[in-house]
Amino acid sequence: MNRAMTGQQLTSLYLDYLDCLNRREWRYLGSFVSMAVVHNGRHIGLAGYQDMLQGDYRAIPDLHFTPELLTVGPKAVACRLVFDCMPVGIFLDLPVYGRRVRFHEHAFYGFENNRIAEVWSIIDHAAIAAQLAGPV
Amino acid sequence: MNRAMTGQQLTSLYLDYLDCLNRREWRYLGSFVSMAVVHNGRHIGLAGYQDMLQGDYRAIPDLHFTPELLTVGPKAVACRLVFDCMPVGIFLDLPVYGRRVRFHEHAFYGFENNRIAEVWSIIDHAAIAAQLAGPV
Repeated sequence: MNRAMTGQQLTSLYLDYLDCLNRREWRYLGSFVSMAVVHNGRHIGLAGYQDMLQGDYRAIPDLHFTPELLTVGPKAVACRLVFDCMPVGIFLDLPVYGRRVRFHEHAFYGFENNRIAEVWSIIDHAAIAAQLAGPV
Repeated sequence: MNRAMTGQQLTSLYLDYLDCLNRREWRYLGSFVSMAVVHNGRHIGLAGYQDMLQGDYRAIPDLHFTPELLTVGPKAVACRLVFDCMPVGIFLDLPVYGRRVRFHEHAFYGFENNRIAEVWSIIDHAAIAAQLAGPV
């Protein structure tokens, strides 16, 4: 079952993964994410990955993953995600405290055996800081 | 000349673009970048794009663009770039002042007529801040 997926299959798989996150269907997360997943160089594994996501939802109860741009390589997906949400407290070291912020994440996903095996993610921290510095 | 490029052609074109930047061959920049290029939502055009890059080289004399991950869509490229360099002064509001820092940029490039027409870029600002906070 280690056959290479087509770009269309990988796109579809990735969008199903986002749907799984948005529905918070954690019992299906292992269908999309490898047991040995690595996130930004940290070997957190599937359980650690789920903990991270559940922590994100506690910090941002109205969190929703929306893909804006998508490019697909043979075994990789890159996605520009947009978030429009209200983190309840301090988020990424910034005192958001329930204000509405809009920001992007640029994430690369390496796939192995049709599951996400490694994620490299950067969030646009400066955009959030700029919104907090601006008028309420 | 608006024929769709193959993924391989687009990859090759993008790597030639990085080579153009790394060689600072500004006279060729227009071969890769559209006259009407948009960068992070700002309509800066080719001249503004060149100004931005030349400013980057003044801020970081040893700047070098190294692609680490690359995914290619029909008319788009996404690249995780790594930088290992010594910005001379304040860089992205951080007091680097010649210290060596290593950080990544995640950039998406939309192509039109075989030229970069739009760029969406996020730099890992937090990684630089963390290095400055650490031991010298």
